[in-house]
Amino acid sequence: MTEFDVAGLQRRLADFAAARDWERYHTPKNLAAALSVEASELLEIFQWLTPEQSARVMEDPGTAHRVADEAADVLAYLLQFCEVLGVDVLAALDAKIERNETRFPVPDRPDSPNRHSSE
Amino acid sequence: MTEFDVAGLQRRLADFAAARDWERYHTPKNLAAALSVEASELLEIFQWLTPEQSARVMEDPGTAHRVADEAADVLAYLLQFCEVLGVDVLAALDAKIERNETRFPVPDRPDSPNRHSSE
Amino acid sequence: MTEFDVAGLQRRLADFAAARDWERYHTPKNLAAALSVEASELLEIFQWLTPEQSARVMEDPGTAHRVADEAADVLAYLLQFCEVLGVDVLAALDAKIERNETRFPVPDRPDSPNRHSSE
Amino acid sequence: MTEFDVAGLQRRLADFAAARDWERYHTPKNLAAALSVEASELLEIFQWLTPEQSARVMEDPGTAHRVADEAADVLAYLLQFCEVLGVDVLAALDAKIERNETRFPVPDRPDSPNRHSSE
Repeated sequence: MTEFDVAGLQRRLADFAAARDWERYHTPKNLAAALSVEASELLEIFQWLTPEQSARVMEDPGTAHRVADEAADVLAYLLQFCEVLGVDVLAALDAKIERNETRFPVPDRPDSPNRHSSE
Repeated sequence: MTEFDVAGLQRRLADFAAARDWERYHTPKNLAAALSVEASELLEIFQWLTPEQSARVMEDPGTAHRVADEAADVLAYLLQFCEVLGVDVLAALDAKIERNETRFPVPDRPDSPNRHSSE
Repeated sequence: MTEFDVAGLQRRLADFAAARDWERYHTPKNLAAALSVEASELLEIFQWLTPEQSARVMEDPGTAHRVADEAADVLAYLLQFCEVLGVDVLAALDAKIERNETRFPVPDRPDSPNRHSSE
Repeated sequence: MTEFDVAGLQRRLADFAAARDWERYHTPKNLAAALSVEASELLEIFQWLTPEQSARVMEDPGTAHRVADEAADVLAYLLQFCEVLGVDVLAALDAKIERNETRFPVPDRPDSPNRHSSE
C-alpha cells in the first residue's frame, strides 16, 4: 500500500464534487446506486472467466488497468457515500472484524502444532 | 476518520480468511461477485426511500447501524479483492482523481470572485 | 404486450448460444452474474435522476431505446438462467403472487365503497 | 413452460400494487433499483460455488426453491418496471435477438457438414 490516506482521498473527492456543483446529485440513495453500478462493472470483467482465468487477469496490462480503475471507482463512491452520511467506514470495518472473530471462531485443527499451546 | 489504516485492516482480513481456510473460496471472481452482492445490500436499504428520506437514514439508530455495517462489508470485500490481485486501490484512486481533474475541468462561474484572478 | 411468447424466446436464445458454441460459458453462476450486471446497466440510466425525471425517460427516443434494450438484456439472461436450471419462472412468479396475496392482505379502507359488501 | 402468460402476470402485479397503494413507491428508478437488488440476491446463492457446484444447485430442494423464488422476484420487478414505462419487453427481446444474429454471425466450422453447401 501507499502513503495515500483515506481521509485525504475523501476530502479531495468532496472538494472535486463541490467545485463542479455535483453535490446536489450526491444523495445517499444516488451514491448507493452508483456504488452498486460500479461494483457490477468490476464483476463484468470476470463474468465469463473460469476461476483459474480470473486469477490471472493482472497478466494482461489492459485488463490490469481496467481492474484497478473499476476498483478505484468502487472506493470513490463508497467514500463519498460515507462522507455524506458521516459513516466512519474504517472504524465500522474494525468493529466488524472483531465481531466476526467471535462469530466464526477458528476451528481446532488436529494437525496444528499450536493447538495445545498456552495462548 | 480514525487511526485505523487500510493496510492494517487488509492484513487482518487476510489473516482472518487464512485462519479459517477460506482462501480457496477467495478467487478474484468470487470476491468481485461478493462485493457486488454487498453493494446491493447497501442499496436495498434505500430502494423505496425518497431522496429526502435517504438523507435522514442515520437518525434511526437501527438503520444507522445497518448502513455502517453494510458499508463495512463493501470495504471488506473490496480490500480482499485488491489483496488477492495485488491492486493498490488507494494509489489507483489517487490517479483516477488526477485524471478526472483534467477530464472534468471546473467550469467558469460568472459569479466567482476568483474568476479573473491571476492563478 | 405482443404475440411473442416466453417459451419461443427461450428456445431462440438457446439455439443462438448453441450455434456459437457459447454453452460452455453458460454455467448457472455465470448467467446469474451476467443477469446482475445487466440489471445494473439498467439502473445506471437512472442513478442520478430525480424520481420525477425517472418517470419521463421514455420522452427522449435515445434513452427510450436504451431502456428497452437493457430490459431485454435482463430478460435474456433471466430466461437463459432458467433454461439451464430447468426453472419454470412463469409458474414460480404465479406461485409467488399467490403467496404474497396471503402475506400482504389488502388493508381495510375506511373510504372504500366496497368495504361492507358481501364478498 | 406453462400456460401462464406474461401479460396476465403483469396485470396481476399491477392490481396487487394498486390494491395496497404501493404505486407511489413504484417510480421507474425505484423499480430499477429493486430489480438490481433481486438479481444480486440470486447471485448471492452462487457466489462461493465452483462452476460445477453451481450446475447442481437444483439437487437440493431447499436451494432449488430459493433459486426459483429469487428468479420470480427478478421477473416480478422487471415486469413492473416495463409496465410503468410502457416497455414491451418481449418485443424488445425479439428485436435484440434479431440484431444479435447479424452482429454475431455463426462461425464457419471446419468439421461442419454444411460448410460447403450452397446456402
